[in-house]
Amino acid sequence: MISGQNYIGNQASSQGSQTLKAYNPTDGSEFPESFTAATSGEVDAAVEKAESVFSAYKSVSYEQRAQFLEAIADEIMDLGDALLERASGESGLPTGRFQGERGRTCNQLKMFAVILRDGSWLDVNIDTAIPDRAPVPKPDLRKMNVPIGPVAVFGASNFPLAFSTAGGDTASALAAGNPVIVKGHEAHLGTNDMVTQAVLRAAEKTGMPDGVFSMVNGGISVGQQLVKHPKIKAVGFTGSLLGGRAIYDLASQRPEPIPVYAEMGSTNPSFLMPDKLAADPEGLGNTFASSVALGVGQFCTSPGLLIGVKSDALDTFTSTLSQALADASPATMLNERIATSYYDHRGALIEQIGVETLGDASNPGENKGKPLTAKVDGQSFLNNPKLHEEVFGPFTMVVECEDANQMAEIANSIEGQLTGTMVASEEDINNHPEVAEALSRKVGRLLFNGVPTGVEVCHSMQHGGPYPASTDSRTTSVGTAAINRFVRPISYQNWPDSLLPDPLKNSNPLGIWRAINGERTKAPIE
Amino acid sequence: MISGQNYIGNQASSQGSQTLKAYNPTDGSEFPESFTAATSGEVDAAVEKAESVFSAYKSVSYEQRAQFLEAIADEIMDLGDALLERASGESGLPTGRFQGERGRTCNQLKMFAVILRDGSWLDVNIDTAIPDRAPVPKPDLRKMNVPIGPVAVFGASNFPLAFSTAGGDTASALAAGNPVIVKGHEAHLGTNDMVTQAVLRAAEKTGMPDGVFSMVNGGISVGQQLVKHPKIKAVGFTGSLLGGRAIYDLASQRPEPIPVYAEMGSTNPSFLMPDKLAADPEGLGNTFASSVALGVGQFCTSPGLLIGVKSDALDTFTSTLSQALADASPATMLNERIATSYYDHRGALIEQIGVETLGDASNPGENKGKPLTAKVDGQSFLNNPKLHEEVFGPFTMVVECEDANQMAEIANSIEGQLTGTMVASEEDINNHPEVAEALSRKVGRLLFNGVPTGVEVCHSMQHGGPYPASTDSRTTSVGTAAINRFVRPISYQNWPDSLLPDPLKNSNPLGIWRAINGERTKAPIE
Repeated sequence: MISGQNYIGNQASSQGSQTLKAYNPTDGSEFPESFTAATSGEVDAAVEKAESVFSAYKSVSYEQRAQFLEAIADEIMDLGDALLERASGESGLPTGRFQGERGRTCNQLKMFAVILRDGSWLDVNIDTAIPDRAPVPKPDLRKMNVPIGPVAVFGASNFPLAFSTAGGDTASALAAGNPVIVKGHEAHLGTNDMVTQAVLRAAEKTGMPDGVFSMVNGGISVGQQLVKHPKIKAVGFTGSLLGGRAIYDLASQRPEPIPVYAEMGSTNPSFLMPDKLAADPEGLGNTFASSVALGVGQFCTSPGLLIGVKSDALDTFTSTLSQALADASPATMLNERIATSYYDHRGALIEQIGVETLGDASNPGENKGKPLTAKVDGQSFLNNPKLHEEVFGPFTMVVECEDANQMAEIANSIEGQLTGTMVASEEDINNHPEVAEALSRKVGRLLFNGVPTGVEVCHSMQHGGPYPASTDSRTTSVGTAAINRFVRPISYQNWPDSLLPDPLKNSNPLGIWRAINGERTKAPIE
Repeated sequence: MISGQNYIGNQASSQGSQTLKAYNPTDGSEFPESFTAATSGEVDAAVEKAESVFSAYKSVSYEQRAQFLEAIADEIMDLGDALLERASGESGLPTGRFQGERGRTCNQLKMFAVILRDGSWLDVNIDTAIPDRAPVPKPDLRKMNVPIGPVAVFGASNFPLAFSTAGGDTASALAAGNPVIVKGHEAHLGTNDMVTQAVLRAAEKTGMPDGVFSMVNGGISVGQQLVKHPKIKAVGFTGSLLGGRAIYDLASQRPEPIPVYAEMGSTNPSFLMPDKLAADPEGLGNTFASSVALGVGQFCTSPGLLIGVKSDALDTFTSTLSQALADASPATMLNERIATSYYDHRGALIEQIGVETLGDASNPGENKGKPLTAKVDGQSFLNNPKLHEEVFGPFTMVVECEDANQMAEIANSIEGQLTGTMVASEEDINNHPEVAEALSRKVGRLLFNGVPTGVEVCHSMQHGGPYPASTDSRTTSVGTAAINRFVRPISYQNWPDSLLPDPLKNSNPLGIWRAINGERTKAPIE
């Protein structure tokens, strides 16, 4: 079932001599298969094939494209338990988790099928002509979104299904009409291989042109070649700030710069406001402990900063939280690199001036992530940007402020975030409006209570925030709006109706919402 | 009326010792005023003031913001003929032209006032909660666009009103709720000074916070300081590829990269298809001659490439065109730099292999732009990327192809364009679908006949194309969608109705279109 090959469209290919191996992080054991890294010729062939079918693929009807996406979901389901077990084996996460993640991945694909049918993503605007306008006639102008060309996708290690081979980036780029080339993630080579074949089977079954999807394995040089290739027109990435920024820099230095949508994580600050905190400090401590430990803290929305005003309630919260995290069992992290990096980054942070460690900061080994709480005073936090950095893993830091003013100062001092949470009563918000106001400038999603982990896939989700949360705060990598990253508008001026694309025709043959002279309607143009 | 000062919000300021002078390109004479270049302290003060009022300005109601934009239009009209005369004096363009451009500028400001009232720019999406969903409850999520922070604007020399101080970039950034700092254009210092004061009067009259608009004069270093300033969150630019790319590079290399919306011009290829061309080669030759010579060719949509198949009809077209352009009087260009650059670039191009000059290629001096036609065969054009470059001014080149296949090859070989025109009958499009298909990939606006000069300000305009036409082909610098450049979405999760911003409240107090669970409606949420 696992081929270990690259796929230049439907063509399996392994011309190179360098191979990669997949590992089980639980015990460090190797999986039996070898995966051949793509040669530079294979990477080039994949992009050239994508480019050569772009015109054919974007001409496929939206209905057929929707069926392609639905077929991918079906083929992923047909992989059955073997997929769940492989994903679990390569990530150390339980199979139950992958049941959920698989559902999310398939729902995501189906969601884009829905918007392909309803046409909302086309954002059609029509301004009709006024031939006798003085001093010059007003032309007929009709605008819609079109795909941009071949897209390179780099998946994330922490979501081997939902943010990888057939995850949100691939689904939205394909939905928009762009061929996709996935760089297989080195931390889940087998999972990627299985899903790649599922996508290709779906493409064949639904009659998509060969080349609409390719997958290349390899290291940094394969990734760099993709990003620099003149026929790649955009990049989707989920991962670390270091990786995302390197890709962004490479893409912006090209002769023709291209957009890079890098979602790079966050500390996801939560502000524990006095009134709300006083009402149930223990309950909140336990709730946040669960959120911090969830998935061994390996979520980009994991709450890494908890900011409150010095008080008995905050003390109770902090001791409940740190006790719950101390009691939580260490669990296997995604891979050795992630585990090492967790202890390195955490270690560098807790040795900073003013930081107090609340619990056992040892490393149990075997790639296990042991949860930990730290505490720091507000002024030390403000003085030291090092403390603002994300530690990817089950670690959180309580910031003890002098007063609500210092909370607002902290909200003003932090960098861009995917999420920010106001743990607050309505009274808290009204008493200290400056905190939520400052926080709102820094985040893509602003929660009123609850925890930031859990990212709903829907129209109104914003998963992306000011830098360094993402490289383009105007876009989201989750939800229907993710498709906007891979389209651009084109205006047709004075075209005869018969030659216009369907979304722009007078009769509105697709029956979609359009804005005609600024008014939204599904009506045809008489 | 002209102060020669910088404006840190409402505060006139001239602390520097370096001064700039305004020139009349017609005779090279100096205007009497001196303009003080901003010091680095003044630039910093302008940005800090913008940042300090951002929170206040974005809290101003959309209705008040609309009134501010309308007041700017009123204040510009109140400058009367003095403005038209000054703009004419600084640009060499006739005052009649500025009557039109002033109207366009004011209409643009008023257009953004309209969309501030109708709320379309907010792009509200609401997904309501499903508290009893298994396995996890669905949260309530409500998304809307919000401003991003202080914006730096660099205007264009060729539209001293419509693409400068209070032009489309400023109007759309202000409409979105962002304070604006304009870098005064050195080629129309007096015009910029007058319009700056008009904007500030409008801000005061409508009670906007001091700092919502600032203007600094100076050279490259002032511009660089603005682009690099950590509190600047986006840049709007209209001008040359060289200038736009330099700003893009600077912005993408910042610790926190920011979006740069640079509109950098185009050769605007027109494909003269056989059937249409044969019907009226002389008429088309004259039509395109007028478009090439319009405004001394100083439009980013000026038709610089005319591509046809070798034929008697193309010969007739070419001789009519070249004769009409030879007969057109040379006219004063915007400034000495633009005139020099016109002859330099044109000279470098017409000395390339295969290029034939059809007319007198001399430079009459006195900053006058003399129209010229050149001709080249299709293969030479394909072989030589130098021939694909824009010559800013009244110059155009006929490319004589072997057949329609070569036309398609040329469409495939050119770089990104603001516009492309199919001079065609419906039969032509059906006979040679590959030409329009290839062209559609390269352009933001695709015309069916007519000429590309003339850019309608409306909802459906796309003024921006694949690089190097602009740095972000997903956006437009003309029309209502220009506001999308200066906003980002934010999602509110589980907020109580009373604390939500008005656009997201259940009752829909603004009465705007919203998408609720994917369905568009103006209805409240019960």
